[in-house]
Amino acid sequence: MQHRIHNFNPGPAALPLPVLEEIQAELLDYKGSGMSILEMSHRSKWFEDILNGAVDRLRRLLWVPPDFDVLFIQGGASLQFCMIPMNFAPQGVPVDYIDTGTWSSKAIKEARMLGRDVRVIASSEDRGYCCIPSSFEVDEDACYVHFTSNNTIKGTQWTRFPSLGEIPLVSDMSSDFMSRPLDVRPFGAIYAGAQKNIGPSGTVVAIVRKDMLERTPDSIPSMLKYQTYVNHNSLYNTPSCFIIYTVGLVLKWIEETVGGLEAMDERNRRKAKVVYDVIDDSGFYRGTAEETSRSLMNATFRLPDENLEKRFVEEALAEGLGGLKGHRSVGGCRASLYNAVEIEAVQALAEFMKAFERKNG
Amino acid sequence: MQHRIHNFNPGPAALPLPVLEEIQAELLDYKGSGMSILEMSHRSKWFEDILNGAVDRLRRLLWVPPDFDVLFIQGGASLQFCMIPMNFAPQGVPVDYIDTGTWSSKAIKEARMLGRDVRVIASSEDRGYCCIPSSFEVDEDACYVHFTSNNTIKGTQWTRFPSLGEIPLVSDMSSDFMSRPLDVRPFGAIYAGAQKNIGPSGTVVAIVRKDMLERTPDSIPSMLKYQTYVNHNSLYNTPSCFIIYTVGLVLKWIEETVGGLEAMDERNRRKAKVVYDVIDDSGFYRGTAEETSRSLMNATFRLPDENLEKRFVEEALAEGLGGLKGHRSVGGCRASLYNAVEIEAVQALAEFMKAFERKNG
Repeated sequence: MQHRIHNFNPGPAALPLPVLEEIQAELLDYKGSGMSILEMSHRSKWFEDILNGAVDRLRRLLWVPPDFDVLFIQGGASLQFCMIPMNFAPQGVPVDYIDTGTWSSKAIKEARMLGRDVRVIASSEDRGYCCIPSSFEVDEDACYVHFTSNNTIKGTQWTRFPSLGEIPLVSDMSSDFMSRPLDVRPFGAIYAGAQKNIGPSGTVVAIVRKDMLERTPDSIPSMLKYQTYVNHNSLYNTPSCFIIYTVGLVLKWIEETVGGLEAMDERNRRKAKVVYDVIDDSGFYRGTAEETSRSLMNATFRLPDENLEKRFVEEALAEGLGGLKGHRSVGGCRASLYNAVEIEAVQALAEFMKAFERKNG
Repeated sequence: MQHRIHNFNPGPAALPLPVLEEIQAELLDYKGSGMSILEMSHRSKWFEDILNGAVDRLRRLLWVPPDFDVLFIQGGASLQFCMIPMNFAPQGVPVDYIDTGTWSSKAIKEARMLGRDVRVIASSEDRGYCCIPSSFEVDEDACYVHFTSNNTIKGTQWTRFPSLGEIPLVSDMSSDFMSRPLDVRPFGAIYAGAQKNIGPSGTVVAIVRKDMLERTPDSIPSMLKYQTYVNHNSLYNTPSCFIIYTVGLVLKWIEETVGGLEAMDERNRRKAKVVYDVIDDSGFYRGTAEETSRSLMNATFRLPDENLEKRFVEEALAEGLGGLKGHRSVGGCRASLYNAVEIEAVQALAEFMKAFERKNG
């Protein structure tokens, strides 16, 4: 029996133990092939089945309609920040962005660097990004409206997505993708780094509506063009095979063990409630996000002072609760409660929080 | 004891068994952290040590001078095909490329797509890419001269790199990087996908001379700028942590078990000789590369007809020798003999080849 902590890391983050055990068991010989998955050609039948299996499962879980493609792309969401405007926003046509903190701001910066006519139609910057903007007006001629579905640093999350008629939504869902059901149809594109809810770091999943591809100029490099990934089923060049394999296993776990995204959502709500209840019942912990914008993925909170926060993180780790330090840009504490974090882990955290308050409150 | 074949895959390819065993042993609990390496923050001390350890080891093995940076970048060599001209070739200044087949041709295509003044100063296309061009003239005002050090498809390899004085060399070394010693100094940039000689697919190693960075315009997206990776020690965003970890283990194996790149080279020469000797002693197998351009990494050969080639590949696999099919674009057979392929595997292949010839010759 190996030592395992309760892992509240903000990403890369906890993975389901049965997934890790399956990887471990077949690491030297993938299904009788005589090779490790790490040594296997991306053009082999084995890998083709892994890739197509992952895509099919994702389509099933999310009810992805046939006019959308599901793609695996390297480089992280940060590469998507430039690929999105390069592919979908012709020069001179406005693109609308909603700014809910660091990740949205970075997406805005990259679109501007490419000379796009970026309009920030809403921002919660004046509120220290403690909430999701409740109202905004979209430019009628906007190419798309871009937003970040969950902010890992400030602990905020969109509970309902905007409805904009013909104007496609584009969203960075890196930190809550596949944590709840989702109506894909109003989106022109969705992208998400795997390393929060569906796998280790090293791949992005992009879901792109086919008509969006018509906007892409021929002249951009092959690896920066979504059409290249569509034409080659994400196999134009060698992809991150092992990461896609692991994503496939996590998706299988979501579908077969958890029971799909409705069940996943219910489980995630239950987990978040345990932590937020401790915060709300306490005069000691203070949640940093406005209540209606609270994230189910990242519960961010402060203690009365920074020394206590430091001790909180250290003592928690000593009790087998890891990854509770807030993002270096904001300080404080943060419990990331992604898909693979078990309810038992969250209950252990709640007990620890209460005990720490009793001792120090 | 798990079933393991001799793996001659062209990449992703064989990995050293002790590396796979180490990954397997610590997959659920990385060095007492209570987490899998797959679940670990890229900002943790553990991962910082992994990343810096890999960079340091690579610098040591290759004698990388201090005026070069060693970077990990996602997206494969195919993304480098556009990053190289974007960063290092201002519009209007000529860039020289040497064309030795598919991968060089793709690099040329991407540079042209970006509107660069690409001059193909040498090509072995008229010889069906069966050799490395022996002479060429470089433009005096060229930004750089780009070449592919080893062609996996045609089985050709540069044995000595060109010497061009002040004009920096730029090379795609994806398929022979770290298979032999290398004088880094004449290069402005070297890049290599990991999935042949130093790890699984999912990261590129780039070695960039610092003065090259001064050429990069500010306006290109952050993730496409080498300077971003330099400034953040390859941690501007979440990298492919597990892949870098595995690369680190392979580099450790090269340094500590094999004994460095001189020893690696000697081992690789010995392996290639075993296969080429069978080919040369036979009237049955015919090598496709010109003798002086033969690759130590990929031995490509034909049999008298395609039916025999098909049977060769099938019967070899039945005897535990996998991955011997030639690239789909050229057919024939190919034995990839990368770093992790053991001499015993190559001897088994030679025995099989001789037996197959006796039966069918």
